[in-house]
Amino acid sequence: MKQIDGGITAVSGVRAAGVHAGIKAADAKDVALIVTDTPATAAGVFTKNSVTAAPVLVCREHLSDGQAQAVIVNSGNANACTGEVGMANAQQMAVATAEQLGIDAELVLVSSTGVIGQQLPMDKVTDGIQTVASALSTEGGSDAAEAIMTTDTHPKSVAVEIEIDGTPVRIGGIAKGSGMGAPNMATMLSYLTTDARINPQTLQTALNRVVDDTYNLLTIDTDRSTNDTVILLATGHANNVDIVAAGENYETFCEGLQFVCTELVKMLARDGEGATKLVEVQVIRAKNRSDAEKAARAVAESPLVKTAIFGNDANWGRIMMAIGKSEAGFDPYQVNVYLENYQLVKNGMDAGYDENRATALLTKDSVLITIDLCAGDAEITMWTCDYSYDYIRINADYRT
Amino acid sequence: MKQIDGGITAVSGVRAAGVHAGIKAADAKDVALIVTDTPATAAGVFTKNSVTAAPVLVCREHLSDGQAQAVIVNSGNANACTGEVGMANAQQMAVATAEQLGIDAELVLVSSTGVIGQQLPMDKVTDGIQTVASALSTEGGSDAAEAIMTTDTHPKSVAVEIEIDGTPVRIGGIAKGSGMGAPNMATMLSYLTTDARINPQTLQTALNRVVDDTYNLLTIDTDRSTNDTVILLATGHANNVDIVAAGENYETFCEGLQFVCTELVKMLARDGEGATKLVEVQVIRAKNRSDAEKAARAVAESPLVKTAIFGNDANWGRIMMAIGKSEAGFDPYQVNVYLENYQLVKNGMDAGYDENRATALLTKDSVLITIDLCAGDAEITMWTCDYSYDYIRINADYRT
Repeated sequence: MKQIDGGITAVSGVRAAGVHAGIKAADAKDVALIVTDTPATAAGVFTKNSVTAAPVLVCREHLSDGQAQAVIVNSGNANACTGEVGMANAQQMAVATAEQLGIDAELVLVSSTGVIGQQLPMDKVTDGIQTVASALSTEGGSDAAEAIMTTDTHPKSVAVEIEIDGTPVRIGGIAKGSGMGAPNMATMLSYLTTDARINPQTLQTALNRVVDDTYNLLTIDTDRSTNDTVILLATGHANNVDIVAAGENYETFCEGLQFVCTELVKMLARDGEGATKLVEVQVIRAKNRSDAEKAARAVAESPLVKTAIFGNDANWGRIMMAIGKSEAGFDPYQVNVYLENYQLVKNGMDAGYDENRATALLTKDSVLITIDLCAGDAEITMWTCDYSYDYIRINADYRT
Repeated sequence: MKQIDGGITAVSGVRAAGVHAGIKAADAKDVALIVTDTPATAAGVFTKNSVTAAPVLVCREHLSDGQAQAVIVNSGNANACTGEVGMANAQQMAVATAEQLGIDAELVLVSSTGVIGQQLPMDKVTDGIQTVASALSTEGGSDAAEAIMTTDTHPKSVAVEIEIDGTPVRIGGIAKGSGMGAPNMATMLSYLTTDARINPQTLQTALNRVVDDTYNLLTIDTDRSTNDTVILLATGHANNVDIVAAGENYETFCEGLQFVCTELVKMLARDGEGATKLVEVQVIRAKNRSDAEKAARAVAESPLVKTAIFGNDANWGRIMMAIGKSEAGFDPYQVNVYLENYQLVKNGMDAGYDENRATALLTKDSVLITIDLCAGDAEITMWTCDYSYDYIRINADYRT
């Protein structure tokens, strides 16, 4: 596996673009389009929030046949809590895009991200669709990555090349965060492309598996968006031997996909609203995966742990408090806690660590907390960020 | 029912004191003692965190006979994650207090609050116990309320007089917060006294019921402490007719207790770390109580809702997002949301409210959010606060 440039458009058969249509204030890009040259095999994972945004409903419908050829995305407005008008607008986005591309509207997937509860300015959106369609290019991946951003401070893009039975296969991805990162996906949009030849069921199985181990283990602030979407389009241009579930080629494909999604998730965590550092919470020797996730999530979502990390304070008592409230099974007086490989807690108590050394480890821009529950052999890693003044500033002012 | 002065020492047979023993930095009071003149009927509710502090373990043991005569409390150090030494220290606090009072150590309950993971400075604690015992008075309730504080900005105390079958009965209480306010009690210590005559089982039943409707519906930041404790001592001095569960007198007693605890919970929420306002989240017409609590908790614990309230931003989309992630059952397009009586959301969409009027309601120091799920007839009220810069400041620096 080697990392390559180009993001989603590093993949053969994929063009993309991102333009400014005036949905966002200022002159930031706010409409993105991703297109494959022929209908692609497609898979998706969507928010579990019962208040579901209109574009997510459209995606679920249009993906039911496992095929798609385009994804149209606007930022600046989530088209959520917008009723029948919102639903018609989401459908209209698909229709307008299909007209520009000369394809069937059923082949167009739709996403929106931004403020909840306002109707889309459809004149701007329609103009934007026209502009973005005429800007499509095989180098447009980074513009698309930029156009899907809301409070993200920079675009997020990654691509790799793997080999499936001797044939080079590429996988690319872009994503945006950055608040509402929580239980079962962030306010999170991610679009993945590959030139792998793979059938719809296998593609969906692979995506579900990788989303469970990546996006679903990302948490910014416990809130879960109405619009979360991960879409994976496979053009089949690589002409590899067919990938079928549970074989060696499938495992190789999943590894590549896992790498792309893990890199995107780390970028999302590091760029969480107000974040000053990436925090990886690793729980080892848990009784089972469920307990490992409970303990990791309790730590990764604890405001008291996250503010302590922001303050470079090795306040391990808060980590003990968090795993204690998690309902994971363990003996408090067998727990060990480490910063990187430096032990803070031994058998549930102060390991006699040096406060200056612990502080130094916390001032780095990536912090790894390892919690050894000494209760079994399951492990998990979750990704989050610290809680800073800027989280408050960004979110106290978001609509103004 | 009438509210009276004097807090816990408004109750006949109760003396209290609070002194400075040097456990906290600066010259703040840090040891509190509450004593009844004869062994009281006693009940308690404690943290469900599996990392349980030593004093909580001592309390559970000493309360097993439903009797207690004293509560000794230190602030500045939680005596949690302190192993066998911590356990011996908690027991020693009971023994030293018993010696000062000339009573059995089994009659002494113990609490600690503050930093986790450091051993108590027992020389200072022992001196403090001696000092506080000699300071006991029937006017010492407010000193005790002060001595149990950690990051609280002011002491919290309340008392009422009710009538049980024509006999005046008093109930008083003190409490401290103010971070880690969360699922099933805050970092929260609360001591309640009454002169009611009531048997231990009925007292415990009443306390469980009222804690469920008050302290367990308080949430500051989702973190749950290792030390949470609510203790209720009944001296029996009122000489009312015996209160037995499920009768009219029991209901009257519970009403009084509910009032005292609700007032304390509101004070705790309003004084949550960094809080600039009290936020009451009321869910009405939920399918059942469990759904009502899920929806209320999701809103009350959403960092995005709480930062919006801090910013006086009527961002109702975040409220919809929060109830949507709660797993409560409802139809998103039947939901109504109000600020006080002013409607923001009608049938899941913008009610066409005036942004300035909504902002004005949010700038008040008490904010009431009512969410009508239109799904049944259960309702609940939860208490929380907004999320401000000061929450970050306080918690990034707590140990330094």
